Amino acid sequence: MRKIEVGILGATGMVGQRFVSLLEHHPWFEVAWLAASERSAGRTYAEACNWRLREPLPKTARELPVEECKPGKAPQLVFASLDSKVAGEVEKEFAHAGHVVVSNSSNHRMDPDVPLLIPEVNPEHLALVRVQKHERKWKGMIVTNPNCTTVGLVMSLAPLEKTFGLEKVMMTSMQAVSGAGYPGLPVLDIIGNVIPFIGGEEEKVERETRKLLGKFVDGHVLMGDFAVSAHCNRVLVEDGHTESISVSLRTKATVEDLIEAWRKFHARPQELHLPSAPKHPIIVREERDRPQPKFDVWTENGMATVVGRVRPCPVLQFKYTALSHNTIRGAAGAALLNAELMKAEGYLD
Amino acid sequence: MRKIEVGILGATGMVGQRFVSLLEHHPWFEVAWLAASERSAGRTYAEACNWRLREPLPKTARELPVEECKPGKAPQLVFASLDSKVAGEVEKEFAHAGHVVVSNSSNHRMDPDVPLLIPEVNPEHLALVRVQKHERKWKGMIVTNPNCTTVGLVMSLAPLEKTFGLEKVMMTSMQAVSGAGYPGLPVLDIIGNVIPFIGGEEEKVERETRKLLGKFVDGHVLMGDFAVSAHCNRVLVEDGHTESISVSLRTKATVEDLIEAWRKFHARPQELHLPSAPKHPIIVREERDRPQPKFDVWTENGMATVVGRVRPCPVLQFKYTALSHNTIRGAAGAALLNAELMKAEGYLD
Amino acid sequence: MRKIEVGILGATGMVGQRFVSLLEHHPWFEVAWLAASERSAGRTYAEACNWRLREPLPKTARELPVEECKPGKAPQLVFASLDSKVAGEVEKEFAHAGHVVVSNSSNHRMDPDVPLLIPEVNPEHLALVRVQKHERKWKGMIVTNPNCTTVGLVMSLAPLEKTFGLEKVMMTSMQAVSGAGYPGLPVLDIIGNVIPFIGGEEEKVERETRKLLGKFVDGHVLMGDFAVSAHCNRVLVEDGHTESISVSLRTKATVEDLIEAWRKFHARPQELHLPSAPKHPIIVREERDRPQPKFDVWTENGMATVVGRVRPCPVLQFKYTALSHNTIRGAAGAALLNAELMKAEGYLD
Amino acid sequence: MRKIEVGILGATGMVGQRFVSLLEHHPWFEVAWLAASERSAGRTYAEACNWRLREPLPKTARELPVEECKPGKAPQLVFASLDSKVAGEVEKEFAHAGHVVVSNSSNHRMDPDVPLLIPEVNPEHLALVRVQKHERKWKGMIVTNPNCTTVGLVMSLAPLEKTFGLEKVMMTSMQAVSGAGYPGLPVLDIIGNVIPFIGGEEEKVERETRKLLGKFVDGHVLMGDFAVSAHCNRVLVEDGHTESISVSLRTKATVEDLIEAWRKFHARPQELHLPSAPKHPIIVREERDRPQPKFDVWTENGMATVVGRVRPCPVLQFKYTALSHNTIRGAAGAALLNAELMKAEGYLD
Repeated sequence: MRKIEVGILGATGMVGQRFVSLLEHHPWFEVAWLAASERSAGRTYAEACNWRLREPLPKTARELPVEECKPGKAPQLVFASLDSKVAGEVEKEFAHAGHVVVSNSSNHRMDPDVPLLIPEVNPEHLALVRVQKHERKWKGMIVTNPNCTTVGLVMSLAPLEKTFGLEKVMMTSMQAVSGAGYPGLPVLDIIGNVIPFIGGEEEKVERETRKLLGKFVDGHVLMGDFAVSAHCNRVLVEDGHTESISVSLRTKATVEDLIEAWRKFHARPQELHLPSAPKHPIIVREERDRPQPKFDVWTENGMATVVGRVRPCPVLQFKYTALSHNTIRGAAGAALLNAELMKAEGYLD
Repeated sequence: MRKIEVGILGATGMVGQRFVSLLEHHPWFEVAWLAASERSAGRTYAEACNWRLREPLPKTARELPVEECKPGKAPQLVFASLDSKVAGEVEKEFAHAGHVVVSNSSNHRMDPDVPLLIPEVNPEHLALVRVQKHERKWKGMIVTNPNCTTVGLVMSLAPLEKTFGLEKVMMTSMQAVSGAGYPGLPVLDIIGNVIPFIGGEEEKVERETRKLLGKFVDGHVLMGDFAVSAHCNRVLVEDGHTESISVSLRTKATVEDLIEAWRKFHARPQELHLPSAPKHPIIVREERDRPQPKFDVWTENGMATVVGRVRPCPVLQFKYTALSHNTIRGAAGAALLNAELMKAEGYLD
Repeated sequence: MRKIEVGILGATGMVGQRFVSLLEHHPWFEVAWLAASERSAGRTYAEACNWRLREPLPKTARELPVEECKPGKAPQLVFASLDSKVAGEVEKEFAHAGHVVVSNSSNHRMDPDVPLLIPEVNPEHLALVRVQKHERKWKGMIVTNPNCTTVGLVMSLAPLEKTFGLEKVMMTSMQAVSGAGYPGLPVLDIIGNVIPFIGGEEEKVERETRKLLGKFVDGHVLMGDFAVSAHCNRVLVEDGHTESISVSLRTKATVEDLIEAWRKFHARPQELHLPSAPKHPIIVREERDRPQPKFDVWTENGMATVVGRVRPCPVLQFKYTALSHNTIRGAAGAALLNAELMKAEGYLD
Repeated sequence: MRKIEVGILGATGMVGQRFVSLLEHHPWFEVAWLAASERSAGRTYAEACNWRLREPLPKTARELPVEECKPGKAPQLVFASLDSKVAGEVEKEFAHAGHVVVSNSSNHRMDPDVPLLIPEVNPEHLALVRVQKHERKWKGMIVTNPNCTTVGLVMSLAPLEKTFGLEKVMMTSMQAVSGAGYPGLPVLDIIGNVIPFIGGEEEKVERETRKLLGKFVDGHVLMGDFAVSAHCNRVLVEDGHTESISVSLRTKATVEDLIEAWRKFHARPQELHLPSAPKHPIIVREERDRPQPKFDVWTENGMATVVGRVRPCPVLQFKYTALSHNTIRGAAGAALLNAELMKAEGYLD
């Protein structure tokens, strides 16, 4: 099979770098086109990019020219991780011009006709793109993945919603600094510190969770019928968002039932053997002090959600800890898996 | 006024060192007697103690001999911060021998006849010591302060319980490493990490909170009639436990009502002008990203609880962040304030 | 004595904030005028300034207006901590207009007619300002303090140079992140890392050291006749530059001789009892593992240099560790002590 | 080829865990026997070991029994990483009983008849084991690798010594916390801190460097004829010792000459294609701010030494920064490469 050429909007940012890295040896896709802000345009990727990943800059990308963020020469499939100040308009422009925009930005996530997609959770929402085509007269489309804090929460909630029904969800996050991008947080802000505030994050988690777990009925997503409350905190961890979660369910269950629901959970990406799909989307650890970002964040190449410490909650019904890699499963890896699902389901034909 | 001589049980540990430091210039008390494990006994304090505080070892304590943990030569008033493996028996022995034991250890906190005391919250519980005298035939007594994670939570809850009545409390902590004592946590466990488990901590928070906010009726404490759920996590902060808290109240209130209840809160230690009492036991910060341990942990010399980010909670009714200094207000400072209350209320006569 | 009104150029930056904080209760000086970039001008200090110190913003400064960096309304004495991109010209403009500019910026440090001053080390260099007046026709003057890494090194070298003569100096620094200002270093650059490069720093240390320890002869400073080599590294410490130093001396000495030279060292600021002068400019620790920034950086309010681990060096003659507070003794405190010396020596009359 | 069975003395410690991990898929060796302290003996490895590596405990090792540290049932080849309190005697006992002990402990490193070995640097020193056999009447032998701080230094010095001759070496280390083992450093000792002392480390570096670069003449190692001075510091980095190094050489050279010497350096392990040998033992980075532990420590699977920032030194002749992975190349990987060399050179027949 010949590889599909892809482009990256916002290629020099942290998520853009992750796209370049994750796509280096991808079996289906290959990076053919990179775009970034005007400041970077006209230089090679190696020149324009302040490469900040531990793995070296792939040779195949070093000499690619960095273009402006304009459709035209870009391939059909474009991954997007632009700053939200410009992402809204640029993504629409690309979709209008016929590109399939697989975006990590927040701008269009809550648009009623834009799929907010986790392939294990709501693959059927992909069909929303037909509404886009019909209503917006776009030749292309926009598909989005959730916020990095939402992903781990929703991955852990999906089997509970399906098996028992959700009633209430309380989540307190301890988020890694890489979630703020680069340069992101000044070290003087976070050294020896916890910052109990991340702009817009709690609102995103609360509404995205309900869209992701919403039912797809008659071309619409009905927001999930449960309450979600998020407390978002930043801590001095490089990668991996840890979440303390409490839930109430609609049907009776035991701790063992929850564990079984998580362990049995596998879904469309696993059935389709998508290249970036974790073999087990949810890993349940039995040690009393896991998951921990230091040891568990790279589980299944950073694509699995790791849960542990499941126990009764005196206020809601159950409490547990979940961990997810915020720049892999929470950003570039999420978009990549979305694109793989779209390819496998025929949306790129 | 001549100062009251005091002793310290467990003087070489981290909390013991804090006692020595806080008592250095205390207007009422002076350190006259130090005791620690057999290994330390027989040496001077400077020799026996691996001093780990930033402030230097007080000269007055340097040359004091370290004794064994036996009553007899000890002063009437003894602060205790022994390892919980031995604290239970030693404290009883001292109380039996006539000493007033003001303890930071967890062993006797939930004994029905032992006051678990925060002077701003439940000063009336002190009267429990009469039950001790009567039932146990002790000539002395034991008084305890709560766990370092409980204090900040309960300080913030007390005005809410009094003003509106509490129904449900959910708390997720991000706790400082100093809470584990010295040597405590190996750096390899916590560098770049969050540890979502602290042995016994959640249970302590859940039951101590209900005892502290319980009513004192007929010589008994009735546990508070509300549900508490705690998630306890360790993060890479040196001092200061940050807590994400959600509550449901029994009567209608607004965000402004909560803020007013906190701002107006002042209590027995403030009325009595106890030397270690914070002028304002609760400080409400209005910035959207405070409190933060780096900037706020030393508020009122580490004796105040700082709250902020009060806002509606979609699952319970309100959510906010609280911060408290875990080795000051959560340990040595807590015991010291307890002793000051006891002195002012005549319990040391 | 009525206090002398002072101004601060670059008042909203990290060093500017330190000036405001250190001057809050100063016995001789009081802040009357604040200036910063055009972006800040026109607002009150509280509005314009993103206050990042742990100690709260002094009330006296909150409502002061922030002016543009133009002479005219500014007081005679002006502390300056401007970005080096603009500091060169602005400082000259102020000196020309008659202001006494006490600067922390690097621009004019190596000008032959500008004193690069550590009051304990080379107070006689102050006389250079007469050359400024004469040659440049300035009504005012510029006086500078050294780079934050140079100060601790030179403080520890000065008694050795005076007593034994210096021949060779090798210094490797482990510098705190606050030395890079705010926002300064992105946390992603320094978390779990050492950065073995700080732009321009090694050159500054090498040449400033030789100017500071140079002889003042006939209105000129003769650069010190010894070799200096610096390796500068950044580590994850908030405040305090730690330095591993090796030296060769011109006359025979023992480890004890060095310790005695440091202990006996006291100088002009101590004789004059300048308000910010440390009682002992150099503190020698005898523990085998000190100084350490965590425990020793605030020695003498951050104005002393702490040395320890003095021992023979197999390559040069002696090696030791020195520690100095980079934003106090290495920046705002340094300038303040310079101004105090100038006042005491009649340079402000 | 059938794999050679190996044993591990001290298998539950941090270096022991690294041995188990590095040997998991080794082409020549397989772990067949594990031993640790009496406390662990009698349990399975999974039970006895508090596994602290990020990579999971290999399945092949989980169920192996942990034995006492007695020869007899152990395989011929034994890797040793025992605590230095017991390593000296145990290693001798094993060598006497016929085992080939490839040790990471410091006890026998400076014994005149024990090879202190870096395969790229002094493979000819291996012949010393014949002296052991002859003088000590051992049926087996002991071979050691250097201290984790010595390795990176000596790897970078070896091409300089060979090409230009060494005269003087000054090294200041910034060492990772994993070098202290587990539990190792309490977090309270190192958070926000630099510790300018590591017991015995400077002496080890100074003498091991001269033995490693010494000539092997007539069955003896003549210590290298140059001076070495080490300053050793601990910083808050997990893995990777960073070293600021200055050198004087015996023959004239330029910065470019040094770079060429490093780039051309390859040695016996590369010729023999030993499985753990880095393809390039020394990597020269050209960026002005590298190497950095965060980005470079895993270069060549942690087996290469990375150097950079080569420039003239005003005191000696050249200065540069070197980085080496302290638990791979500085411990388990070093011993493993030693064993591979011994196998390839026929010492295991």
